[in-house]
Amino acid sequence: MNRRVLLKSRPVGVPQKEHFEIVETPVPTAREGEFVVRNAFLAVEPAMRGWVNAVGNYSEPVGIGEVMRSFAAGEIVESRHPDYSVGEQVMGMFGWQDHAVSDGRSVVRRVARDPDLPLSTSLGVLGLNGITAYFGLLEVAPPKSGEAVVVSTAAGAVGSCVGQIAKIMGCRAVGIAGGQPKVALCRDVFGFDAAIDYKADGDLGRALKDACPAGIDVYFDNTSGPISDAVLGQLNVGARVAICGTASVASWDPVPLGPRVERHLLVKRARMQGFLVLDYSRRYGEAIDQLSRWVKDGRIAYREEYLDGIEAAPDAIAGLYRGENLGRRLIRLS
Amino acid sequence: MNRRVLLKSRPVGVPQKEHFEIVETPVPTAREGEFVVRNAFLAVEPAMRGWVNAVGNYSEPVGIGEVMRSFAAGEIVESRHPDYSVGEQVMGMFGWQDHAVSDGRSVVRRVARDPDLPLSTSLGVLGLNGITAYFGLLEVAPPKSGEAVVVSTAAGAVGSCVGQIAKIMGCRAVGIAGGQPKVALCRDVFGFDAAIDYKADGDLGRALKDACPAGIDVYFDNTSGPISDAVLGQLNVGARVAICGTASVASWDPVPLGPRVERHLLVKRARMQGFLVLDYSRRYGEAIDQLSRWVKDGRIAYREEYLDGIEAAPDAIAGLYRGENLGRRLIRLS
Repeated sequence: MNRRVLLKSRPVGVPQKEHFEIVETPVPTAREGEFVVRNAFLAVEPAMRGWVNAVGNYSEPVGIGEVMRSFAAGEIVESRHPDYSVGEQVMGMFGWQDHAVSDGRSVVRRVARDPDLPLSTSLGVLGLNGITAYFGLLEVAPPKSGEAVVVSTAAGAVGSCVGQIAKIMGCRAVGIAGGQPKVALCRDVFGFDAAIDYKADGDLGRALKDACPAGIDVYFDNTSGPISDAVLGQLNVGARVAICGTASVASWDPVPLGPRVERHLLVKRARMQGFLVLDYSRRYGEAIDQLSRWVKDGRIAYREEYLDGIEAAPDAIAGLYRGENLGRRLIRLS
Repeated sequence: MNRRVLLKSRPVGVPQKEHFEIVETPVPTAREGEFVVRNAFLAVEPAMRGWVNAVGNYSEPVGIGEVMRSFAAGEIVESRHPDYSVGEQVMGMFGWQDHAVSDGRSVVRRVARDPDLPLSTSLGVLGLNGITAYFGLLEVAPPKSGEAVVVSTAAGAVGSCVGQIAKIMGCRAVGIAGGQPKVALCRDVFGFDAAIDYKADGDLGRALKDACPAGIDVYFDNTSGPISDAVLGQLNVGARVAICGTASVASWDPVPLGPRVERHLLVKRARMQGFLVLDYSRRYGEAIDQLSRWVKDGRIAYREEYLDGIEAAPDAIAGLYRGENLGRRLIRLS
């Protein structure tokens, strides 16, 4: 049978366990021009909140009764598609289910078998997380050697990669994360020069000054909110801010208030720019090639954590927002 | 005698008449390596508020008892400097006074005698106002033909130039200004496709939708505040925002609150960037050459208004903030 996680009702804010249900249907078969993937890993990520909320986003929200949209990685077990063969590994938008049918358009990338780069990495450091870090840092907020680069949610799949690319570029990398285990990850595993626990350090401004005595040149923003306000106050002239996510803001309806940024940006001749990794889709190969080399050379470390079995899926997004994960969260199917 | 306007006391916010005093001293003479300018026009501009306030800005505030810092334009009447000759016209940071001594470092540009381009234009459309519009639009928020460009304080010396450059670039130019006389200037003299009176149009969002039915691609921001909030809500994907000034915000101490911008910038993959025209100082010549051709060709119109006599100076900045000027405000000396 094919177990599938359906969206049962539409949440406001973070989707909880009760917004999903698991159903079983027969394993699908491929028609002409299609293939069937047996998923080995399902992704769980903060952006999924937006995919199920009713308010406008990049794409239409997941419909009630539909399989939860998600990235997944697996092996092709049946194919009637000329370009895809049984046994090939692929990563794509296959949804929270054991088996998915695709005509190829939902594929993000093929994944070569390489003992050093397991299939799961295609959903993390060698997937959209790594690619997001790569283009967000190097194209949207390019750092120069010697500059100070600050990233929020620094222990996360994107943030940890941003910090390590910053180090490769010769920068001082400073991470902001919540809780000592994440701060320790940043320092000890990901090699940040400094990591700040925003939950423990009451005065984030002070902690940032200590960590970046010469000011902040690049900020990779995954949070918005008071964390970003503290960072923006310490930008250097010519600073660049890449806006990647707004994890710390519970709701944008209505738009919450914060300190106006115009004066900072003006006096510092600084730039804030939002970006969406999908806009770089034609260049994913370039990022994956470079990131793969860095991972193989040991210059980029990554952490993954697995929830075993599809039964863990319905509560998995809420868990992310509870901050309970250490490393890229994936659901591992047997 | 040399009449000079001194800063008498430090204002909080907009400087008023009582913060200045006029004194008379002997006309200065040049030492070796210096020359004396007799000013014909003194500039009055919103940025002067920042130059006299105590809070941090681009440069040190004007000291109490010092001549008010300002741009001015005049003719060299004495020279012991090898590069400057008597009779030459120059524009520079000569201060609110009849005569100024310079060693050349305070000169922004020389002004050739051209009956089509009077000296006063060196303080407006062919001075830092025009140069600000030129680089701010074309370099910081470059528009593509067919796009919608919105500018605030659109009837002003910078805004009117932005709108006209946008038209030259093949864009739809939409101005926001306060009051019918300014709106009429935008439409009838500066050729904006549409002009919105933010004071009369209660629902600025509605007015912007009517003026930009296909959304806003470029915003040249001279105001910050609720005007900018309304514009930011209607940005298109890939929009560019150049932050040039914050005229609508009375004080930045403490930083006022406004709707957070991160979500807009993220969903629209949009960019906000502050800039300072002084950072382009090595390229002023390029801007002046181009702007001069456009003015001579009748493609850029400008308006100047003169306050006669240095006695008008002390109240002139406050008058700008009262919104009483129509056109680039200059003090004309006899």
